[in-house]
Amino acid sequence: MTTVHIYGAAGYAALEAIRWIDAHPYLTLGVLESRSHAGEPVAVHAPLLRTLDRFFDAEGTVLESATPGDIVMLAGSHGAAQAIVPELLARNIRTIDLSADYRFDAAAVYGFPALYRGRIATAALVANPGCYPTATLLATLPLRAFSVERIIVDAKSGITGAGRNPTVASLFAEVQADVRAYSLQGHRHEPEIAMQWRAAGLDARLHFTPHVVPLARGMLVDGYAVLAKPAEAERVISAYQDAYADDPFTRILAGDRAPSLPGVVGTNEAEIHVSVQGDVVRVLCAIDNLGRGASAQALQNINIMLGYPEETGLARRAIAC
Amino acid sequence: MTTVHIYGAAGYAALEAIRWIDAHPYLTLGVLESRSHAGEPVAVHAPLLRTLDRFFDAEGTVLESATPGDIVMLAGSHGAAQAIVPELLARNIRTIDLSADYRFDAAAVYGFPALYRGRIATAALVANPGCYPTATLLATLPLRAFSVERIIVDAKSGITGAGRNPTVASLFAEVQADVRAYSLQGHRHEPEIAMQWRAAGLDARLHFTPHVVPLARGMLVDGYAVLAKPAEAERVISAYQDAYADDPFTRILAGDRAPSLPGVVGTNEAEIHVSVQGDVVRVLCAIDNLGRGASAQALQNINIMLGYPEETGLARRAIAC
Amino acid sequence: MTTVHIYGAAGYAALEAIRWIDAHPYLTLGVLESRSHAGEPVAVHAPLLRTLDRFFDAEGTVLESATPGDIVMLAGSHGAAQAIVPELLARNIRTIDLSADYRFDAAAVYGFPALYRGRIATAALVANPGCYPTATLLATLPLRAFSVERIIVDAKSGITGAGRNPTVASLFAEVQADVRAYSLQGHRHEPEIAMQWRAAGLDARLHFTPHVVPLARGMLVDGYAVLAKPAEAERVISAYQDAYADDPFTRILAGDRAPSLPGVVGTNEAEIHVSVQGDVVRVLCAIDNLGRGASAQALQNINIMLGYPEETGLARRAIAC
Amino acid sequence: MTTVHIYGAAGYAALEAIRWIDAHPYLTLGVLESRSHAGEPVAVHAPLLRTLDRFFDAEGTVLESATPGDIVMLAGSHGAAQAIVPELLARNIRTIDLSADYRFDAAAVYGFPALYRGRIATAALVANPGCYPTATLLATLPLRAFSVERIIVDAKSGITGAGRNPTVASLFAEVQADVRAYSLQGHRHEPEIAMQWRAAGLDARLHFTPHVVPLARGMLVDGYAVLAKPAEAERVISAYQDAYADDPFTRILAGDRAPSLPGVVGTNEAEIHVSVQGDVVRVLCAIDNLGRGASAQALQNINIMLGYPEETGLARRAIAC
Repeated sequence: MTTVHIYGAAGYAALEAIRWIDAHPYLTLGVLESRSHAGEPVAVHAPLLRTLDRFFDAEGTVLESATPGDIVMLAGSHGAAQAIVPELLARNIRTIDLSADYRFDAAAVYGFPALYRGRIATAALVANPGCYPTATLLATLPLRAFSVERIIVDAKSGITGAGRNPTVASLFAEVQADVRAYSLQGHRHEPEIAMQWRAAGLDARLHFTPHVVPLARGMLVDGYAVLAKPAEAERVISAYQDAYADDPFTRILAGDRAPSLPGVVGTNEAEIHVSVQGDVVRVLCAIDNLGRGASAQALQNINIMLGYPEETGLARRAIAC
Repeated sequence: MTTVHIYGAAGYAALEAIRWIDAHPYLTLGVLESRSHAGEPVAVHAPLLRTLDRFFDAEGTVLESATPGDIVMLAGSHGAAQAIVPELLARNIRTIDLSADYRFDAAAVYGFPALYRGRIATAALVANPGCYPTATLLATLPLRAFSVERIIVDAKSGITGAGRNPTVASLFAEVQADVRAYSLQGHRHEPEIAMQWRAAGLDARLHFTPHVVPLARGMLVDGYAVLAKPAEAERVISAYQDAYADDPFTRILAGDRAPSLPGVVGTNEAEIHVSVQGDVVRVLCAIDNLGRGASAQALQNINIMLGYPEETGLARRAIAC
Repeated sequence: MTTVHIYGAAGYAALEAIRWIDAHPYLTLGVLESRSHAGEPVAVHAPLLRTLDRFFDAEGTVLESATPGDIVMLAGSHGAAQAIVPELLARNIRTIDLSADYRFDAAAVYGFPALYRGRIATAALVANPGCYPTATLLATLPLRAFSVERIIVDAKSGITGAGRNPTVASLFAEVQADVRAYSLQGHRHEPEIAMQWRAAGLDARLHFTPHVVPLARGMLVDGYAVLAKPAEAERVISAYQDAYADDPFTRILAGDRAPSLPGVVGTNEAEIHVSVQGDVVRVLCAIDNLGRGASAQALQNINIMLGYPEETGLARRAIAC
Repeated sequence: MTTVHIYGAAGYAALEAIRWIDAHPYLTLGVLESRSHAGEPVAVHAPLLRTLDRFFDAEGTVLESATPGDIVMLAGSHGAAQAIVPELLARNIRTIDLSADYRFDAAAVYGFPALYRGRIATAALVANPGCYPTATLLATLPLRAFSVERIIVDAKSGITGAGRNPTVASLFAEVQADVRAYSLQGHRHEPEIAMQWRAAGLDARLHFTPHVVPLARGMLVDGYAVLAKPAEAERVISAYQDAYADDPFTRILAGDRAPSLPGVVGTNEAEIHVSVQGDVVRVLCAIDNLGRGASAQALQNINIMLGYPEETGLARRAIAC
């Protein structure tokens, strides 16, 4: 058994990670550090953890408790990881960071298994991808076999992607009746996607627009790739099927069957629909922003770091088993 | 024209009041003071005010600007009114307070027109009722003609009743999948209701349970009154019809036609359904927690304070006209 | 392994049952008969069954396929069970009916384990309780130790309780902005509850009001019991704790911690909060209307019928494991 | 006063039209024909019409009652208009059809005022545009001043766009947790948009993907236009400002201020945000699918047909006034 300590344990991604770790056959929950909710029962904060008899631990407890052989998961606000990662690494404690802090840092391996499986296995520090880049990369990487001019990405996200720190913009009354485009002058995930495209050999211009939809969880990304010349539909669809042939978490759909958010929420799964209209390839990708887009993918990365089969503890059924 | 200044102008009730005042034939918007949002465009905060070309005013501007003849509406957090009401009254500026600060204070007239219409007309300070007491009093006051042992009130409210200050409990993801009972050990609106019952001659024990439902706006109160002896249905229903015969904002329903939240949201209206089962009278009352339960009733009170017909500017149609 | 055939397999309760059966260690899915959707992939109808490679079977296939030793689950519209139960019983095929058809019929055992565990074990025909009676019985049966005059039940249900047959009243646009009381002149579940109260020795008058809330799943029942004389809170709470001491699916909450719908949805669990105010006992009970209120309880009953531990295949965690 | 008769009066667009007509200073409600709900009170079907004392009229009553000088509004299912339009025209009764039946028919004038204001004024038959074409044309027509290669349109609609006929796909439980792309192999609104582009001199390829979001009302269209060469942002934004300078219903937004669905729902308004990134112009357009996308635009057309100012009876404020 490997102990996983969580820093920033009362956020949405952390609570979801607790659920996965608690059910994992080879992982055990360590410290659950939360500055803002120290001492409060976890069960009160997370409906899905109602039967978990744990309380949030106080500030500093992760650093106090973690020892080599453990995994530390950082799930605090962006910026917080930088304060403790150096000490964790100095003490040889393997770390996975769910914030954006290390996604551009050469000291970390980017935790997208399809690209970096081998390096994740031995990484001291894994920077877990954001939900938008995860869905976008899943939707677009198989296109590197083609000559792509540009990809327009229209992304729709549930509000948990904005985190659990209370803001007016995340209040029920502000979210429930709107489809709200935001970051209209540039979104911080664009460079993350562009950097991974380059690393993977996909050379295309990116036009990215995020939206919040009235959902707690779930993300649908519509990618529209303009190719240098028309492509045969069969060849494109084959490229997607081949790319994900060995990925137990990703399904390629065809015809009139659309990706379904309730079909992936609560899982590490993705549903992808591809179609071709002349020189435009349209790809729809549905994931759970807190699952494949955050904590379930983090568990997949931890499985890789520890040498377990990637599906370990990541039951493919959304609810119960 | 009478100028209405608003203190705490960026909250849900205040934004709703701005809408009503802006459309009122004899009222004009004065200062819109908001400490937390001073300088920001009102239009960005309130979708229904998208065409209003106003900015929130800075702290202190209500006290600087208000003169006798104006009305000041206080819509800040509970506790804030007490800091400025004494000065307003000392300067002979008539004030209506939407917070709970003065609802138990003899210096204020309780702004429930059916009980205090005459005193509201000349009041220097009106304490506007809360949404739970408003719906509960509408549902129960006609029962004072009967001998009532107890009334069990099961209330369901949209989340805007909790205000616009961001808290975890009001986040979309926390509200959207639950019907959440709260204040299980006693709710601050119980004494407000009980005091008004006594004043109105309704002597009954109150058992009150509030719930948040996944709605932005709207409130349904189910009252179950246990009488000392069985009552004839016709007599009870007549008591309700008589009580509201002159109230243009209140409809009595019968048979299988239930009160409808979308039928009252955006208005000052109430829908009441009464039925009798032996010694139990069941009364359902639907209002808009921000309308009849807050700002629309405040406008009705301002109409009374200024001598206008009570319906002035309170169009009965929910959307447009 | 026991084969479970489902009649009316495309409704919400049936789809939920398929999920539980598919994950059960000793049960296997038999025929999935659906007259209206025969030949269509199950995966398209049920997001949670996206990876299930099955198609709905044609009319008559349950009767063709079922053999003694199998279980037949009837999940069709109310009225449909009566057409095939006699033949199933004549052929010695044990049957569990999720419709209301046999809940008042002496030929069937009422599938509420706390009352009829022993008889369910050997029953040929089990009538699975409705969601409203299940939540109400869970909330009220421990009160049989007290002298209860009346119980007022204010019930709030997600819309899946109304089934998957399309009606205007179940459309998104009709449900999403309302809390809708219905059956204001009497609800068909009242006699079901009253009959079970009598059988269990609880002699009280019932006042029952059902509401639809804007949720797909989940049910909260607020019961207000008026006792013949005041009761000590400790004694009442003890009665509840004792009643459910051996029930692995039911949690008793106290103080300010309210039952949570997202804490029980997707499970066979119930959360119950009890408090006492003089002669009134207030009990809140949260269940999943499709879980404890339908299919998960049906699986519990099947476990009893087949002699398995009641928790078999009914993982207590809401999502994944 | 002009009498407006409505055929198919119990659908969402018709109910919304009734609201507008009832509040219009020069229009009066005629027959409200509904085959499926004849005899039922309108107030029960439409929360916003709770105070309207009318019942749906029986089949055939529109044809019986309409006389020259009246307007007939057809709001039945697609296909129904063709059965009665010939007789209406033969009897010189001016007709506006909200279905798709006549949108490609030379006998009808396409009711998009910005393009056909003059012809609408004298038309015998107006084919009112669909919600997707309306939002898309608003978002894209100002681009005809540029050389546009293609426009990718990613559209998000509330479910009322699918009508009020009950189908499984429109049930609350099917809509509430998903963002559902549909018509993945081609949508019937594509040729409608393309035809109007051609007529207006906009020569571009269209890639159109519609989605249902968990909203009753509201539509956001994101258009991504790829130009033949980069354009200056100022010139593009000016083109939009000029195009809508005289349109009292359309607002052009800039910078980080996004279009807001609750800011336009219940109105005839549109909010448009334009930005330029090299050779891509991104345009976001928010409308009410039942307002500008259906009934409010129909009222605007009726105003034009009758010679009234276009804003008559189309109050710009979303709720009340």
